Amino acid sequence: MLRTIIFSILCICVLSVHAQPLQVVRLTAPDKTRGSAVMKALNERQSIREYSTESLKPQDLSDLLWAANGVNRDDGRRTAPSTRNLQEVEIYVAFPEGIYHYNAAEHVLNLKVAGDFREAVAASQAFVATAPISILLVADMNKFGNLSESSRMFGAIDVGIVSQNISIACAALGLATVPRGTMNHEVLRMALKLSDMQLLMLNHPVGYPKN
Amino acid sequence: MLRTIIFSILCICVLSVHAQPLQVVRLTAPDKTRGSAVMKALNERQSIREYSTESLKPQDLSDLLWAANGVNRDDGRRTAPSTRNLQEVEIYVAFPEGIYHYNAAEHVLNLKVAGDFREAVAASQAFVATAPISILLVADMNKFGNLSESSRMFGAIDVGIVSQNISIACAALGLATVPRGTMNHEVLRMALKLSDMQLLMLNHPVGYPKN
Repeated sequence: MLRTIIFSILCICVLSVHAQPLQVVRLTAPDKTRGSAVMKALNERQSIREYSTESLKPQDLSDLLWAANGVNRDDGRRTAPSTRNLQEVEIYVAFPEGIYHYNAAEHVLNLKVAGDFREAVAASQAFVATAPISILLVADMNKFGNLSESSRMFGAIDVGIVSQNISIACAALGLATVPRGTMNHEVLRMALKLSDMQLLMLNHPVGYPKN
Repeated sequence: MLRTIIFSILCICVLSVHAQPLQVVRLTAPDKTRGSAVMKALNERQSIREYSTESLKPQDLSDLLWAANGVNRDDGRRTAPSTRNLQEVEIYVAFPEGIYHYNAAEHVLNLKVAGDFREAVAASQAFVATAPISILLVADMNKFGNLSESSRMFGAIDVGIVSQNISIACAALGLATVPRGTMNHEVLRMALKLSDMQLLMLNHPVGYPKN
């Protein structure tokens, strides 16, 4: 009986530890010389929807996020241009442990919400939930100060720009991805506490190609 | 007197020849192995607004347009992904001689309208008109079949994707560019005979960096 109680307490402790994801994940420095030639990467760029369940290696994760919308100049400017340099595209990453926000200035991931939301990203295409991560792209329209048709168009263009950085980086680094509009918006918007000015537009499951 | 007349006739002939742009420009084959490493190109990616007036070398022009939205697979798929593979983003190129449409399937340029419209692309930022070419990106919403808010968002995302192919290719090939929303829409829409379903969203002046 005592043994059962101790075993139960141990289980609860282990689960608690497992359920407690890191608040901050410091990424390794990006390798700014890496990857295949741009024309070769573009030749190999394709949408891939099946992934190995293997976690991303730290260098691959770091390089991918920096490529997506990292800081590439001392004045804080980015790999992705944006309308009037508003830098309104925010990157979230859904891991099995939780969804993190990518802080480009510090090149770190900050926990936004604990829990596995990859099924909510996959929605009707459940097979993409096997990807170890899914990147979410949000246009923060607070930077524009309005939701006019023109502002939403430029917000969407800027999301497309970051999306293609992800696709090209994946092609260059041996990763697989596809840009997707489908996802469970309601669940993800609630989890991320997005306001009506923060438009969740696109997602990118990313993993190694399934053999 | 006779000499003056002959000179005048010669001048008119030469000008006429000069004013008659080629109907079709066959591009050289793209070099699908070329360019710096993707992470290096992203590190060097920046918006450049001043250009040499030098014309683009044929290989650079070919590689740039193929990179932007060329065919990279036997089934006609492209370097740029698009919503449901609609391939709705059309590329036009404004040269001093006229505006051409990029036919990706055949990798050729077809004359759409004769005349120099680079000033109309530059609009209030006249200095960008020195660029030897300006690329225009149009989302043909006929492919969606409607102009709903959702369709326009995905059209804009797809334009952003092609835009970033251009920016990264420029960084990798030693060219300078900037994505711009400003332009004289009315003049360009009339020149290209665009319908209300063909949305002119973005332009990219491209040239060699000004020394």
